[in-house]
Amino acid sequence: MYSREELTDLVGRGIAGLPCNNEAERLIEPVRYILSVGGKRLRPLMTLMSCNLFSDRPEEALMPAIGLEVFHNFTLVHDDIMDNAHLRRGYPTVHEKWNLNQAILSGDVMAFIANECILQAPQESVIRVFRLYNRTATEVCVGQQLDMEYERRPYVTLQEYLRMIELKTAVLLAACLKTGAIIGGSSDRDAGLMYEFGKNLGLAFQVQDDLLDVYADPGSFGKKTGGDIVSNKKTLLLIKALETAQGEELKRLQELISAREFDPDQKVAEVREIYDSLGMKKLSEEIAGEYIGKAFGYFNEVAVKTDRKENLLQLASGLIGRNM
Amino acid sequence: MYSREELTDLVGRGIAGLPCNNEAERLIEPVRYILSVGGKRLRPLMTLMSCNLFSDRPEEALMPAIGLEVFHNFTLVHDDIMDNAHLRRGYPTVHEKWNLNQAILSGDVMAFIANECILQAPQESVIRVFRLYNRTATEVCVGQQLDMEYERRPYVTLQEYLRMIELKTAVLLAACLKTGAIIGGSSDRDAGLMYEFGKNLGLAFQVQDDLLDVYADPGSFGKKTGGDIVSNKKTLLLIKALETAQGEELKRLQELISAREFDPDQKVAEVREIYDSLGMKKLSEEIAGEYIGKAFGYFNEVAVKTDRKENLLQLASGLIGRNM
Repeated sequence: MYSREELTDLVGRGIAGLPCNNEAERLIEPVRYILSVGGKRLRPLMTLMSCNLFSDRPEEALMPAIGLEVFHNFTLVHDDIMDNAHLRRGYPTVHEKWNLNQAILSGDVMAFIANECILQAPQESVIRVFRLYNRTATEVCVGQQLDMEYERRPYVTLQEYLRMIELKTAVLLAACLKTGAIIGGSSDRDAGLMYEFGKNLGLAFQVQDDLLDVYADPGSFGKKTGGDIVSNKKTLLLIKALETAQGEELKRLQELISAREFDPDQKVAEVREIYDSLGMKKLSEEIAGEYIGKAFGYFNEVAVKTDRKENLLQLASGLIGRNM
Repeated sequence: MYSREELTDLVGRGIAGLPCNNEAERLIEPVRYILSVGGKRLRPLMTLMSCNLFSDRPEEALMPAIGLEVFHNFTLVHDDIMDNAHLRRGYPTVHEKWNLNQAILSGDVMAFIANECILQAPQESVIRVFRLYNRTATEVCVGQQLDMEYERRPYVTLQEYLRMIELKTAVLLAACLKTGAIIGGSSDRDAGLMYEFGKNLGLAFQVQDDLLDVYADPGSFGKKTGGDIVSNKKTLLLIKALETAQGEELKRLQELISAREFDPDQKVAEVREIYDSLGMKKLSEEIAGEYIGKAFGYFNEVAVKTDRKENLLQLASGLIGRNM
């Protein structure tokens, strides 16, 4: 078994040594930039840890793991354009630092760098791994499409919202875990269980993310809370609140949402008060809790000795155990 | 041997039956649109014809051929954004008909639809075909990058220009022909020859395209000539003219290029006059002729009976025999 640090180190070296066509330095510079701005390398780490559950050679999953991380960063570059975001993890987004065209094109080339990495999966599993990757990548695009459409709609159902975050966020974590399992030589059943583990973990994570925006301790959250409220983002809380609120409370919530001019701090305080009165925190925690229960239920069924599961258990717990 | 009509029909049905995630109709609608706006299906046809050189089952190359066409259209959607183009083959571009975000995202999903198609190559050749595809797709991105950079530079050398069009246009034709050959079971040598055939054909085509913009008969060219001159596009003619012109002629050419206000028709007429006096038409024809000679030289060496080569010979001749 490799330690988390060893696997993190492996991922870091893998990303540093990415295969790059260097005939156009300016094409690749933004690729290096977005990858260096970093994040926690959650996806490749999960891929390697999942592989290491079933095999003592997790390095066989390294290049596909890097491919999944490159794909994730590809979506960040293009999503940031679509969302008109100026900062990503505290750094200027690619289209801000360079320009729109560069962000489109350097994003595009990342899709092919990701392909190149995925293609380096071991021969016996490469087609299966690539099919899974491709289906997942398509689903992530569909998720982004639904996200954009829902932002323009006055009303979204809880079911629609949950399916959207499943596609946009959860299936990629699921695919990472399943990719590792396939390359590690797991049974089909275990590969399927790992997929469900990742999917439910991703859903729990996203539901918690919505909650954290409203209820996090700003110090440990790392950014100002209430951003989703100010921008009327259709989070789980807003969707359920609009579904649950009645009479005067519903009227006030709708007023707050449709107001064109408002004091942000007051809006956040008032909306939070309505959420409190409707019990939205508890409800969201229950929904997240359900996904967490399911996730670990699936993981528990994976036919591998408990001590091998330690790395992933810790990583997963850390992911969903963020401070409220 | 299949006839050109049979192969064209095969391509048409392949595109109509493309695998699509239909959970987000609006994501796929622009994909169908750009593919239906059409073009001549040159790339998939070349792929199938090349396969049919070596094998009696060109349909084995159908899905990869479609994948190459989807990739080509992916680049069109994103290039049209970058070039701020309003029309493509006489129809509104995707970002005009929908919007920027839709063009980015529907473009992105095409990259994964292309992957899906390429993955359907026969098992024994799928990895080789995918590696070639991926290398080519990356090169096309590099070509677009160089194109964007060169447009901002005051001066580009002929060598730089030729390398740029090789990457942006020629390598994809080369990859189509090589893909067909690989799937058809050709020798490595023949696959390499087909690649060089396609590359040189693509270069000849692009050089001729530059020529046609200035010297085509507007009736058969289908669009107004002189567009490249008006926009100061760095074509072969302009690059060589700037290299060759001297004294007063050079000064006048530079004035024409840098003028902010001008009568387009007069600019076209004057620049064309300079091109004429410098013998640019003849020079470009010579360069195109050299590539054509090389292309058919490589094709000639392919170890296949002459009568099997008929389809591709006709297609290639049609491609470079457009009316001046």
